Amino acid sequence: MAELTRRRLLGGGAAALGVVGLGAAGIGRATTTRDEKSRIVAIHGNHQAGIETEPQAFAAFVALDLRPGTDRRDLVGVLKVWAQDAHRLTTGVAGLGDSEPELAEDPARLTVTVGFGPGVFGPGVFAPDDAAKLRPEWLRPLPAFGIDRLEDRWNGGDLLLQVCADDPVTVAHAVRTLTRTVRSQVSVRWVQRGFRNAVGTLPEGTTMRNLMGQVDGTVNPAPHSPEFDSRVWNPGSPLWLAGGSSLVFRRIRMELDTWEELDRPARELTVGRTLSNGAPLTGTAERDDPDLDAVDRNGIPVIPPESHMARARPRNADEQFLRRGYNYDDVDGTGLLFASYQADVDRQFVPVQQRLADHDALNRWITPIGSAVFAIPPGFGVDGYPGETLLEG
Amino acid sequence: MAELTRRRLLGGGAAALGVVGLGAAGIGRATTTRDEKSRIVAIHGNHQAGIETEPQAFAAFVALDLRPGTDRRDLVGVLKVWAQDAHRLTTGVAGLGDSEPELAEDPARLTVTVGFGPGVFGPGVFAPDDAAKLRPEWLRPLPAFGIDRLEDRWNGGDLLLQVCADDPVTVAHAVRTLTRTVRSQVSVRWVQRGFRNAVGTLPEGTTMRNLMGQVDGTVNPAPHSPEFDSRVWNPGSPLWLAGGSSLVFRRIRMELDTWEELDRPARELTVGRTLSNGAPLTGTAERDDPDLDAVDRNGIPVIPPESHMARARPRNADEQFLRRGYNYDDVDGTGLLFASYQADVDRQFVPVQQRLADHDALNRWITPIGSAVFAIPPGFGVDGYPGETLLEG
Ligand code: HEM
Ligand code: HEM
Repeated sequence: MAELTRRRLLGGGAAALGVVGLGAAGIGRATTTRDEKSRIVAIHGNHQAGIETEPQAFAAFVALDLRPGTDRRDLVGVLKVWAQDAHRLTTGVAGLGDSEPELAEDPARLTVTVGFGPGVFGPGVFAPDDAAKLRPEWLRPLPAFGIDRLEDRWNGGDLLLQVCADDPVTVAHAVRTLTRTVRSQVSVRWVQRGFRNAVGTLPEGTTMRNLMGQVDGTVNPAPHSPEFDSRVWNPGSPLWLAGGSSLVFRRIRMELDTWEELDRPARELTVGRTLSNGAPLTGTAERDDPDLDAVDRNGIPVIPPESHMARARPRNADEQFLRRGYNYDDVDGTGLLFASYQADVDRQFVPVQQRLADHDALNRWITPIGSAVFAIPPGFGVDGYPGETLLEG
Repeated sequence: MAELTRRRLLGGGAAALGVVGLGAAGIGRATTTRDEKSRIVAIHGNHQAGIETEPQAFAAFVALDLRPGTDRRDLVGVLKVWAQDAHRLTTGVAGLGDSEPELAEDPARLTVTVGFGPGVFGPGVFAPDDAAKLRPEWLRPLPAFGIDRLEDRWNGGDLLLQVCADDPVTVAHAVRTLTRTVRSQVSVRWVQRGFRNAVGTLPEGTTMRNLMGQVDGTVNPAPHSPEFDSRVWNPGSPLWLAGGSSLVFRRIRMELDTWEELDRPARELTVGRTLSNGAPLTGTAERDDPDLDAVDRNGIPVIPPESHMARARPRNADEQFLRRGYNYDDVDGTGLLFASYQADVDRQFVPVQQRLADHDALNRWITPIGSAVFAIPPGFGVDGYPGETLLEG
C-alpha cells in the first residue's frame, strides 16, 4: 500500500480519511445521522452507511462479478460511479443517466453499502504478492458445514451492493440505477430481496420477528456503543480496512411445514426464548438476562443446552457480532437473509457457526442454501469512493 | 340454483345477501370502511374487500388448483375456512391453527379476496348442465394475443387468493396461514408478489408510479361512484355473481434495457403523458382531459394515435374497468402485475386488450408472460363465505 494511504489511515479521524467538503452534519458519526424530515441517511463518514443504521424495512443484496479482463482502473471506475450515484440517490437526486428520475425523489432512508468478495484480489486487479498482503485472511468462502445445502445460484460474488430503504420502490430503482451504468465491467450474479415490518406498523425500536414468528435480533451490540465499535468495525487489519467491516451473508431456508407440526412449548425450547415476547425461558421480559444454569424441580435445564440461544451465546468476548438480517418469501420458499457484520470473520463468526452446525436444536427446521463473505471497506468522503484505501495504493 | 339463493339475490341489499349479525359499521359499504386507528378493513358486506379498497402497499396473488377428487363439499369446506381465517386475520386475530399468532397482531389493512377460475365449474363440483348455466361465459383463458409470450408457470388457476396489506410481513403470514390449512384439497399453482410505495412515503391519494417511472392509474373509476358501481360490480349475470366482479390478472414484463435507450420525449410520446406528473401531453396537470385531436403547427398529433393512452381509451361506455395493479421486481425480471376488475371480461376488457395487442407504441417494451381470469364472487356476511350464492344451489 502506498505511504499516502497508510498515513491517511494512521492519522485517524474523518479528516485523515480524506473526508473533505462535508457540512457539519457529515462529520464523525455521519453515516448514521438520520434526518427524520428529509428521510436522508448521510453516506459520507468514517464508516459506510447501512450497518450501524437502524435497519430499514427493505433490502436488496446484489452480488456482482467482474467481467473477464476488468482491471484495477475499471474497478475504480465502477466504485467511483457507485459513490457518486449512491450520494445522489440517497439525497433524493436522480442518478447520473437515471432514466426514471421521479423514482429517486423519495430516498426513504436509502443506504448503499459496498462489499468486496475474494475476486477483487484476483490477478486482474492485484499482483499476486500484493494480493497476499492486502487480502484479509478470512475473505474466502466459509468452511463447509455439515448442515449446508448450498446452491450455486446463491453463493459467492466478487462485489456486493447492499441497498436498503424504507420503500420497496426506492430499493428497486436504486438497484436498477446502480447496476445498469456499470454493465460493461460487472455482471449481476444474484439478487436477494428481503423485508421487515413496514415503517409505522410497529413502535419504533421493536425487535423484528422472523417468519417462524420468533423475536429475532435481541442480543446485538447497541449502535454507537463501545461494544459496537470494537465488534463491528475493523481496527486496521489489514490496514486499509480500518473503519471497515465484514459481511457474512447466508440464505437460510425455513422448513415451516415441519416446524408448524411442533407445539408451542417445543418451539420455544428450540430457541430458549418465548414466542410471545422473546423473553428467555428463565425470564419475563425480552431483555432479561437468560439464566443458563437454572433447572426445574426435576433438575432439567430450563433453557436446553442444545437450544439455539444456548449454543449461539459467545464462549469468549471475541464471539460477538452484529446481526442485521431480513425475511425472505420468494418463489423458492421462505426464510431468513442472515447478515452478520464483524471486524474479523474467522475469529468472531466462524466459531459460533461451527458450534451451531455441530449441534443446534433449530437445525432440523433451517437449511443454509446460500453463502457469501465480503469485506466492507471503510467509509469515504464526498470526493472519495468505497475501497479507495485499498485501491489507491 | 336453489330458490333460496335466487330469492336472497333478487331481494337485494345486505340483509338479503345473508349478512346478519354485523354491527352498524358492517352494513352497506362495509367492504371499504377503513378504521384508521385499528388498521382494519371490514371484509363483510355486499362486495368482497380488496377491490374498492384504497390499494394497500403490498399484494400477493396466489393461484391454487383443486386436487383431483375434490368435490363440491370439499370446495365449500375450503371457502368456509378461508372466510373464517380471513375474518380473523383481517381483524388482528390469529387464524385457526395459526402457528405464528404474533405475526397476525397487526392487520395493516389486510384484505383477502377470493376468485374462481374455470376449474371450479369442472365435473367434480358441478354436473355439466349446471356448469353450463352457472359459469360466466367469459370465465376462460383470454384469447391468444400476438404480443403474448405466456409461460405456463404464471398462467391459470382454479382458485385465487388475493392478499393485500400495508405490511409485507402481514401478507407473508396471511398467505401461509390461508394456504396451509387447506392443503389436502388444493395445491398452490403460483404466487406472485407485488408492491407500491410504502405507506407514508407519498401524500395519500398520490397515483402510483410503475417501474418504468410512469404515473400509472390516473384514469380509473372513483371508488363509491355510480361509475364504479356499474363498471366493476356485476349486476347479476349470471345471477349468483350479483355484487361480484371479475379479475383479469396479467404478469407483464418490462423490457427496461431497451426502454432506457429512449430519450425522455420519446418515452412520453409512447404513452401520451408526461413522466414528470402524468399530465396528458396536451395538458399540464395529471387529471387534465387529454385532447386527442390537438395537432402541433406541423399538423402532427400532440398525443400520437398509436400511444398507449390513445389506444387504450374507451371507444364506448362499455370499455371501462378498474386497474389496481402492483409492481414486481423478482429473480425473473421487472414489470407490472396488471390487475383489472370489471363486471364482464368479454364486453369490457377484451376489446381494449385486443386493440392494444393489435397496435400500441408501448408493446415494444412490455411483454405479457402470464395470464389468468377469475370470477370474483360477491361479498358475504359473518356466517357466510365467498361463493355461497353459487355453491349453495
Ligand atoms: C434461519 C436461521 C436462524 C433463525 C431463525 C435464528 C433465530 C434466532 C433467535 C430467535 C434468536 C434469539 C433472539 C435474539 O437474540 O436475536 C437468535 C439468537 C442468536 N442467533 Fe440466531 N437464528 C438463525 C441463524 C443464526 C446463525 C446462522 C447464526 C450465526 C452463525 C446465529 C447466531 C445467533 C446469535 C449469536 C444469537 C444471540 C445468542 C445470545 O447471545 O443470546 N443465528 N437467533
Ligand atoms: C406493463 C404494462 C402497462 C403499462 C406500463 C401501462 C401504463 C399505463 C400508463 C402510464 C397509463 C396512463 C395513466 C393512467 O391513466 O393510468 C395507462 C393507461 C391505461 N392503460 Fe395501461 N399499461 C400497461 C398495460 C395495460 C393493459 C394490459 C391494459 C388493458 C388491456 C391497459 C389499459 C389501460 C387503460 C384503459 C388506460 C387508461 C386510458 C385512458 O382512458 O386514458 N394498460 N397505462
